[in-house]
Amino acid sequence: MKKHILALSGGVGGAKLAAGLASVLAPEDLTLVVNTGDDFEHLGLTICPDIDSVTYALAGLNDTERGWGVKDETWQAMAMLRALGEADWFNLGDRDMGMHIARSWRLRGGDTLSAVTARLTRELGIAHAIVPMSEAPVRTQVGTAEGWLDFQRYFVAEQCRPVATGVRFEGAASAAPSPAFAAALERDDLGAIIVCPSNPYLSVDPILAVGDVREALERRKVSLVAVSPLVGGASLKGPLGKLLGELGKPVSNASIADHYGDLLDHLVIDEADAGDAGDLRARGLSVTVCPTVMWHADDRERLARVALIAAGIETG
Amino acid sequence: MKKHILALSGGVGGAKLAAGLASVLAPEDLTLVVNTGDDFEHLGLTICPDIDSVTYALAGLNDTERGWGVKDETWQAMAMLRALGEADWFNLGDRDMGMHIARSWRLRGGDTLSAVTARLTRELGIAHAIVPMSEAPVRTQVGTAEGWLDFQRYFVAEQCRPVATGVRFEGAASAAPSPAFAAALERDDLGAIIVCPSNPYLSVDPILAVGDVREALERRKVSLVAVSPLVGGASLKGPLGKLLGELGKPVSNASIADHYGDLLDHLVIDEADAGDAGDLRARGLSVTVCPTVMWHADDRERLARVALIAAGIETG
Repeated sequence: MKKHILALSGGVGGAKLAAGLASVLAPEDLTLVVNTGDDFEHLGLTICPDIDSVTYALAGLNDTERGWGVKDETWQAMAMLRALGEADWFNLGDRDMGMHIARSWRLRGGDTLSAVTARLTRELGIAHAIVPMSEAPVRTQVGTAEGWLDFQRYFVAEQCRPVATGVRFEGAASAAPSPAFAAALERDDLGAIIVCPSNPYLSVDPILAVGDVREALERRKVSLVAVSPLVGGASLKGPLGKLLGELGKPVSNASIADHYGDLLDHLVIDEADAGDAGDLRARGLSVTVCPTVMWHADDRERLARVALIAAGIETG
Repeated sequence: MKKHILALSGGVGGAKLAAGLASVLAPEDLTLVVNTGDDFEHLGLTICPDIDSVTYALAGLNDTERGWGVKDETWQAMAMLRALGEADWFNLGDRDMGMHIARSWRLRGGDTLSAVTARLTRELGIAHAIVPMSEAPVRTQVGTAEGWLDFQRYFVAEQCRPVATGVRFEGAASAAPSPAFAAALERDDLGAIIVCPSNPYLSVDPILAVGDVREALERRKVSLVAVSPLVGGASLKGPLGKLLGELGKPVSNASIADHYGDLLDHLVIDEADAGDAGDLRARGLSVTVCPTVMWHADDRERLARVALIAAGIETG
């Protein structure tokens, strides 16, 4: 049976569905490929926000109230760094800092990002494969009146205030997909591709921009199901709504469908956007309408099952 | 007036007297040279325990109850590192971690240890010069039946359990004193040299072993006053007593005096060891007997004044 699932994920929203998929699929049936376009070097540490979001979600370590980072977090190292006059625009918790120190140390020792991620997630008791999209650095940048801003500069330091004129992924074209990503794309038993509810422009596009990933996805004759990150005609979190407006596109599921174009077979949209379904279906797209906000573990699991059913995959 | 003071210090005990000296001397009148033989690389971070002890003591950030590290400390980054399967034999607090991250980052950027230390101590509001003994790595090692152990391996991981057969300072002979240390040694207005109550074998000897430091100290015709780290015929903290025994020397101030030999003009000993004074004076050594345990800021300041008076330096 063709049942292996390749899921593409960004950070927070995507990480929740990634955790849902991990809760309903056996480890050997799931490859979670995570955006690394937001990664950056800060204070000598290699920070991979989306890999960490997915890791913390799968390990049950994510802070569900704050919506990002590790639960039971403290901020003492950052307070000391601030006292020492170091940059404090990117807030790093103490527990999170342990992750960045371990990753940076092992990368500096010569391990690939894939190997480091596999090791650290295994140590946290995660049985499923969390895979960076590429070993090579890809850097998402947002075009603004001030020029191209690195993603974290735009997202955190500038809090998405500048008007975006475009998005680019430095290094993506010449980057190769990571070995486990490339292997998943070629698996004989690949059953479906799930695009998690992450920002299509900022979190999923970098994955699609890596090497020949887009062509490889087009070649595969399996369903590609995306879960829309929009809820009630707005982004639940993050700058998607603002970005769509600035790029001259309506903040609607039509824009999500347009964006994925021919890659997309099925779009899962929130019940609050049920009105979008008719238009989407008129384009020949298959649509599921259901609650997509994931408050709790059972919401994540339910949405994972919905996406898998939409892809024609049976789950136990 | 010749009134500049060059003080040599190791960690905890030395750091207390260093703070006392800083409280009674103007910044321009004091150069605090600190042992870096205990420094090591751990998890990709450059850790300088003695520089940090002196820094935290002068900044008023030291934990006086635990006796080392930063007050109001937490241990969350270390807990995450442990969960990630990384080495946890050297416990690093979260606030302390901020220091190591800042230092490591700036060293990796190409700054010298002197420049980094000057910058970070200034940011913490310290006006006095805290100076590493050398920019070059010097590594204190303790000889044992298992071979030579790096200092932190001996001191922390093995908790000083192995019987010591000797101490050596890898890299010291070919290392140059740091620029500020070399400059202090040559100052026209150098008034005295104070050796803080640190372990002579493990914390002061590495400083004396750097390049031609010992010869330079012998050349200077100013008083060298040491404050003994022994209290009541035992080391207040750390392995000095055990080490003296293993090296076949009595645990007494006679051993301290022997160790510094001709360098030493005056030894300040604790009132509990008043009985040692006669023997020491019989060797031609000048001796002050007074309380040397530094519980509070006023103890530190008082002992600093005692040491300065012994050196013939007037303080305000």
